[in-house]
Amino acid sequence: MSGNTFGRLFCVTSFGESHGAAIGCVVDGCPPGLALSEADIQPDLDRRRPGTSKYVTQRKEADQVEILSGVFEGRTTGTPIALLIRNTDQRSYDYEKIKQVFRPNHADYAYIQKYGVRDHRGGGRSSARETAVRVAAGAIARKYLRERLGIEVRGCVEQVGAIECARADWSAVNANPFFCADPVRVPELEQLIDRLRSEGDSVGARLYVEATGVPPGLGEPVFDRLDADLAFALMSINAVKGVEIGDGMRVAAMRGTEHRDEMRPDGFLGNHSGGIAGGISTGQTVYARYAIKPTSSITTPGKSIDETGAATEMRTTGRHDPCVGLRATPIGEAMMALVLMDHWLRQRAQNADVKPATPRIPGET
Amino acid sequence: MSGNTFGRLFCVTSFGESHGAAIGCVVDGCPPGLALSEADIQPDLDRRRPGTSKYVTQRKEADQVEILSGVFEGRTTGTPIALLIRNTDQRSYDYEKIKQVFRPNHADYAYIQKYGVRDHRGGGRSSARETAVRVAAGAIARKYLRERLGIEVRGCVEQVGAIECARADWSAVNANPFFCADPVRVPELEQLIDRLRSEGDSVGARLYVEATGVPPGLGEPVFDRLDADLAFALMSINAVKGVEIGDGMRVAAMRGTEHRDEMRPDGFLGNHSGGIAGGISTGQTVYARYAIKPTSSITTPGKSIDETGAATEMRTTGRHDPCVGLRATPIGEAMMALVLMDHWLRQRAQNADVKPATPRIPGET
Amino acid sequence: MSGNTFGRLFCVTSFGESHGAAIGCVVDGCPPGLALSEADIQPDLDRRRPGTSKYVTQRKEADQVEILSGVFEGRTTGTPIALLIRNTDQRSYDYEKIKQVFRPNHADYAYIQKYGVRDHRGGGRSSARETAVRVAAGAIARKYLRERLGIEVRGCVEQVGAIECARADWSAVNANPFFCADPVRVPELEQLIDRLRSEGDSVGARLYVEATGVPPGLGEPVFDRLDADLAFALMSINAVKGVEIGDGMRVAAMRGTEHRDEMRPDGFLGNHSGGIAGGISTGQTVYARYAIKPTSSITTPGKSIDETGAATEMRTTGRHDPCVGLRATPIGEAMMALVLMDHWLRQRAQNADVKPATPRIPGET
Amino acid sequence: MSGNTFGRLFCVTSFGESHGAAIGCVVDGCPPGLALSEADIQPDLDRRRPGTSKYVTQRKEADQVEILSGVFEGRTTGTPIALLIRNTDQRSYDYEKIKQVFRPNHADYAYIQKYGVRDHRGGGRSSARETAVRVAAGAIARKYLRERLGIEVRGCVEQVGAIECARADWSAVNANPFFCADPVRVPELEQLIDRLRSEGDSVGARLYVEATGVPPGLGEPVFDRLDADLAFALMSINAVKGVEIGDGMRVAAMRGTEHRDEMRPDGFLGNHSGGIAGGISTGQTVYARYAIKPTSSITTPGKSIDETGAATEMRTTGRHDPCVGLRATPIGEAMMALVLMDHWLRQRAQNADVKPATPRIPGET
Repeated sequence: MSGNTFGRLFCVTSFGESHGAAIGCVVDGCPPGLALSEADIQPDLDRRRPGTSKYVTQRKEADQVEILSGVFEGRTTGTPIALLIRNTDQRSYDYEKIKQVFRPNHADYAYIQKYGVRDHRGGGRSSARETAVRVAAGAIARKYLRERLGIEVRGCVEQVGAIECARADWSAVNANPFFCADPVRVPELEQLIDRLRSEGDSVGARLYVEATGVPPGLGEPVFDRLDADLAFALMSINAVKGVEIGDGMRVAAMRGTEHRDEMRPDGFLGNHSGGIAGGISTGQTVYARYAIKPTSSITTPGKSIDETGAATEMRTTGRHDPCVGLRATPIGEAMMALVLMDHWLRQRAQNADVKPATPRIPGET
Repeated sequence: MSGNTFGRLFCVTSFGESHGAAIGCVVDGCPPGLALSEADIQPDLDRRRPGTSKYVTQRKEADQVEILSGVFEGRTTGTPIALLIRNTDQRSYDYEKIKQVFRPNHADYAYIQKYGVRDHRGGGRSSARETAVRVAAGAIARKYLRERLGIEVRGCVEQVGAIECARADWSAVNANPFFCADPVRVPELEQLIDRLRSEGDSVGARLYVEATGVPPGLGEPVFDRLDADLAFALMSINAVKGVEIGDGMRVAAMRGTEHRDEMRPDGFLGNHSGGIAGGISTGQTVYARYAIKPTSSITTPGKSIDETGAATEMRTTGRHDPCVGLRATPIGEAMMALVLMDHWLRQRAQNADVKPATPRIPGET
Repeated sequence: MSGNTFGRLFCVTSFGESHGAAIGCVVDGCPPGLALSEADIQPDLDRRRPGTSKYVTQRKEADQVEILSGVFEGRTTGTPIALLIRNTDQRSYDYEKIKQVFRPNHADYAYIQKYGVRDHRGGGRSSARETAVRVAAGAIARKYLRERLGIEVRGCVEQVGAIECARADWSAVNANPFFCADPVRVPELEQLIDRLRSEGDSVGARLYVEATGVPPGLGEPVFDRLDADLAFALMSINAVKGVEIGDGMRVAAMRGTEHRDEMRPDGFLGNHSGGIAGGISTGQTVYARYAIKPTSSITTPGKSIDETGAATEMRTTGRHDPCVGLRATPIGEAMMALVLMDHWLRQRAQNADVKPATPRIPGET
Repeated sequence: MSGNTFGRLFCVTSFGESHGAAIGCVVDGCPPGLALSEADIQPDLDRRRPGTSKYVTQRKEADQVEILSGVFEGRTTGTPIALLIRNTDQRSYDYEKIKQVFRPNHADYAYIQKYGVRDHRGGGRSSARETAVRVAAGAIARKYLRERLGIEVRGCVEQVGAIECARADWSAVNANPFFCADPVRVPELEQLIDRLRSEGDSVGARLYVEATGVPPGLGEPVFDRLDADLAFALMSINAVKGVEIGDGMRVAAMRGTEHRDEMRPDGFLGNHSGGIAGGISTGQTVYARYAIKPTSSITTPGKSIDETGAATEMRTTGRHDPCVGLRATPIGEAMMALVLMDHWLRQRAQNADVKPATPRIPGET
């Protein structure tokens, strides 16, 4: 109830602080029989890992995952899969100086008002480091979705500050540190991050994530809609301030004749709705966007207060990302995978014996 | 698990179809001792009710709510509050003609793929009529929040197609059928809706909702963040395709120096984050925006398929809203109230004995 | 979270007070396509109904159930099924005299300490009248289990005070007001109840409930075991103080050589475990027993206190059952059906693609 | 949803197999500010630990617990507390010979029918070894209950086979390997266990557990009753087949005049109901009993089948307890503590502002 469990049937219970002994999670609800080892999880963790390029935080974490349970002779057993990642490069001394000060736009102040105490080292539980366990859990979901259902989840960056990146070449995404599918924009991104770092500033980003091969019928029609659960999942990523499904916020300016996705026996004529109608997947590509605010921890001093309530000035000197959004693509993929996995299990719980009389039309336009 | 219950501690379980006998809900978790009668709920229902102006659907529903349980001698008892609203003006014959046809961009096709069967009358469970029960349940939450905690929730329309409405005069919101806080825009809105109706088209809208008086400390730091739960709540409203907290999608283009909300002993210097940091309320005004797609049911014919998979043409002739967003302001208010109520109960479950040493600074800038 | 919802995937949310406007529930999670009407539910309600013989309370309630939603053209749609039972014979004046007094061994005193307020009329929410909605919801589960899975749930009384009743003739159960499968004991039961009524006393009872045709594999191995969920379900019935699975409390005196249920290719050689091993159904008959305390509301005066804390004497004069256990057989059946239904949905969510290599042996010995 | 999480507000998510890398859990919902270290947990673990006397299994496990998160500078932070216990003495070779055979009355057969696969080493997830994590989590709950609310939970053995043990001297409980509060019975118990071991047999047990200092008002009136949750909690312990609250199964033979707990301004005149009325604590001592079946793993051969369905004979040769109930006292204490902790948080979520007008009477008679 303290909100550290995600999902209803495919449940991820997350634990761990940025500078504690370890982070990890328990994944409960994975069906038995899935081939699984650390090697299936580590690649996704490595994509999110800090310290991999000069454009992200220089904290060096191995992020080595250990499967503690739930796998026997190389296959899942249907019992809880516990994942453990030991913290190694904590450098808590970086945080001693901010022990009594609240970093602006961080959780620090709200945290102390909520709990009365806080682990000030790197934000404790509020650190984006927690997202590593989401990526690890998401890797399990992605493997199941891919192998059993043919669902592929993938994401990329679409905007960093004023730079817009096209979804031009999916093969480029993992070949640059920005998850950018538009190779010609990579040098611009490099320059922007370099400039921000020297200016002591940061910038926001907009990311895109999609799932192909999603069968129609996932999602519930009222509260637990597929789109509502995606919004919850993506907004729960640190620093996300907006989530869009399909055309997103732009629908406010659109006409019905323009927006509605007409249907033909050979498929849909559009996908303005992001593959979801009435909260339920249509069989089209499910896609969403999420916007991440600029990193609040910057080296430009900011006005703040300390724990006595007195005015102070705050300047971050620890290791941080000039654009926290740059590492958030694997997190969005993981969250989308977790949502789809959960709804797949829900769908078969409720409707395993459904055989719709109506033929299924191709999802892709 | 079929997703008809909202909330963890203040739980609303919704039921009912658009053209069935009734809609309603069970509100479980309302603390005892709150003065409550139908008269506290009916005004909010009346604000959302169809048929109240020529700009919305002409379906005439009394939307008269009956409290079936949970209230004794005028006060809540701490037991489940069941709310019942009988349907009266169903006119199901309007739907006979679309019985075998899937309306484009409606849940129809996804629904039959999910369940194998569907109640075709007015979308059944997918109808926006379901939102009446959210407004009714939300009225209880709003009353508690107002009376016990001094929290006020209110919303208005900000955009309809190309028309932008300022938050100029809150007192005007309930004085026009659009929930518009910008009285000079009302004639433009009237003309737009009239024109759309005659053109057989529809338009989207963007709505704004805020809560003042929210204490710091509501929301959990990881999954069940206050912003994530708001995103879930607002995205679960029919036809919503985007949700923004604070600056929303625009953060992608912003700098850290611009976005971060600095703090002073006499208060915050900005509220770009929508009153939420690290998923936890800061004590500032909590605000969000949500975009609603243009009504899919329009009189301009659209390409579709029927239940045999054959191509057909679809033309809506029933009673519909040219802009479904026009009636969605009370729904957004209700959903925000439900989220805040739930997190208030969660906060006191977990942290009732917290006494932060740090002084609280004024939330409002 | 106020504990009025039962089940995880087949969820029953109960509402209503003994002397309020109505009682009812929302059943969420019933798969679509099940033929269902009020006629499928009413018979079970009639079996539990008060006032049907002189051996039970003389309160006359029609207990007429209305399906408000979730059924279309005679079949479930996969959406919430709301059930409504209006109260008709409340006679609240019977309770005026006990308004300021706590009935011994009733929830009255604990209730006021918990909620600060209480609906004193007939125990309000604590009344056994609430169990009518369990029976109604259970009737839906029983129908599904019977028609789709061949599972039959049935119960009977085994002990009333010193009278032990054999499970001699299942066909007799519904032919006497005691749910007694041992016709020769019926006259003794009649005399006992008559004598208790004249003496102003009451008596306890032990009931038996079983399910045949349960496939192996239902139940989870750790917390949500099938036996643990049955214990929860049966202990949640008003006045139940003990629950036994299989040999129950007697296992404390047994040897392993005596208790263990050996297996042969043609079936199990015993069923001491009640059809459940390690929390999971074995394919044998699942059976349980539950003991119901003697009715606390008796006409023999008892010592108590009033709302000021002063000593008083309490004598019940309203309509009550000399043995509340006499009407509890249909409730136990309903609860067992709800548990099995829930675990069936859970099993297919998690393990729908399981094909055990091991052959299944016959469940029945 | 796979049933590895216990509790609603104080949630324990358990993981790990008997012969895997580790067992452990995540405790989510512990209020911040509780002083906590491994030293608070280890003593309870040591009480349950195998290999501590010749009367229990000779498996040697250090059962050393590590707190991975949720504690900072010696106090809980309100975030998830992850507990890890590495397995050290697995000796899986003991289980190679039973790899293809189902042990009678174990979960083996039901397990393979459920999951299609199983970790045959020591029962995998079905092993009583899992209960170590319950004891560890329970130690946190017990500490909170003791320090913040003055609630003490304690248990003892009452029956082993034909030997009945009185609750004569609570100080003796931890001074013998049987958790026996009746020192004169200890030699008899020793002889019984020795004899059973030489005979290749086992025996059942009945245990008692109580909580003193429980305030009135814990528990919900309908499904999530305090007694129902206790029944669930205790029945979820491996090998438990019966649960009793207060007088338990004996109420079937009792009269209302005998059973009802009358009240006086200076306290209750009896506690037949086990401190719970209508599902809600009364302020009296809460007590329960649970019966544990004789260990199924005995050295006397038993009839069984193998994975091909063929008849075979089964003889356990690994390390086992002749009476698994002998180590179950700390588990029962832990489960009762977890239930009370959960309901305490629920009570203050819902009713934190309740101030009952009625004076509270002393709970103890």
